Amino acid sequence: MKDSLIIVSGGMDSVTMLYEYSERIALAISFDYGSNHNSHEIPLAKMHCTRLGIEHLTIPLEFIHQYFRSSLLEGDDAIPEGHYNADNMASTVVPFRNGIMLSIACGIAESRGLSMVMIANHGGDHNIYPDCRPAFIDSMSTAMTCGTDSQVAINAPYTNLTKADIARHGKQLGIDYSQTWSCYRGGDHQCGKCATCIERREALAEAGVDDTTEYEG
Amino acid sequence: MKDSLIIVSGGMDSVTMLYEYSERIALAISFDYGSNHNSHEIPLAKMHCTRLGIEHLTIPLEFIHQYFRSSLLEGDDAIPEGHYNADNMASTVVPFRNGIMLSIACGIAESRGLSMVMIANHGGDHNIYPDCRPAFIDSMSTAMTCGTDSQVAINAPYTNLTKADIARHGKQLGIDYSQTWSCYRGGDHQCGKCATCIERREALAEAGVDDTTEYEG
Repeated sequence: MKDSLIIVSGGMDSVTMLYEYSERIALAISFDYGSNHNSHEIPLAKMHCTRLGIEHLTIPLEFIHQYFRSSLLEGDDAIPEGHYNADNMASTVVPFRNGIMLSIACGIAESRGLSMVMIANHGGDHNIYPDCRPAFIDSMSTAMTCGTDSQVAINAPYTNLTKADIARHGKQLGIDYSQTWSCYRGGDHQCGKCATCIERREALAEAGVDDTTEYEG
Repeated sequence: MKDSLIIVSGGMDSVTMLYEYSERIALAISFDYGSNHNSHEIPLAKMHCTRLGIEHLTIPLEFIHQYFRSSLLEGDDAIPEGHYNADNMASTVVPFRNGIMLSIACGIAESRGLSMVMIANHGGDHNIYPDCRPAFIDSMSTAMTCGTDSQVAINAPYTNLTKADIARHGKQLGIDYSQTWSCYRGGDHQCGKCATCIERREALAEAGVDDTTEYEG
């Protein structure tokens, strides 16, 4: 039964979820909030949806670029290098981004008669991103259920998986991770050095995936 | 202390709240979702903010008009006449509208260092609008608090008031309600006959406000 809408960025996690749950997914939505990496991610998200025969929409959210504060929106040079930690990555938080994406997805799900909104937050999401935490996902799902006639809920099946676990799912599904985008910078290729690139490379290595991604340099 | 952001439509309820809590309000936001009445409401919202010296932003949400289903978005003729009831007004629900407005407001509040988002839902909001109910407001506030570093919360002080109660507050504050817009249609003047107009007129009458609004016909 196709009862679900998925938020898909074009990164490793949401693309894996798209393939793993494709039989339940009626609609996929990408949000373009003007970040450094949206222009790389979204065409990949669309490509995977086309391949799977899933309708895909891109929703532009210009107001985020206009009114929100985050280094993710400021250009390549603002993105720090090195492993994730609160000091270097706190600046990349886009305030309440998941709340905004989930709310819009909820309204579209209700409009389309879909009862589930899927999002690929996972256990490796870092504590500096409060809207990736299980407590947020749970309370947001309650708000969506209370706030819609058809009681739309969130389905976040990767909440307790690590990124390496997700890569293991993808390996079984035969996903080509070179056709996903993680880098927070906006170069022609993924930099391989920012925290999201490091995390991606480590997860793929841990899962035993042969990483054919072309990194910069 | 100016710690609050308010969602202001330009209708009776949010304009009253704007005046009543103006000392706490640092920023007011109107959302333009392409409804029949936005073009009348939003200039009034802006005018009241200017008068009070409160910064005002209008955020366009084109995706609602594009992807959501509601008679509120379809033109004058789609809006039913007569008192509110589930049969005639269910078609005017914009799915999860308050969830979307609150989420965006939450992200901007966090970006600006504001800890409260005010919204003028009230006890007279009808059960056909699930995202006006106290259970939704409570769970959405929890989601916002969990999903932000600064633990942004919702302040909805009219939740248990009737629309006539709100009109009584406005009467004490000296608000000119002819400078607010309620009608769901898009004519030059408010129609006086749709459910929101009837509700407005009854609330003003009950509060003993001399209604100088120019209605159609």
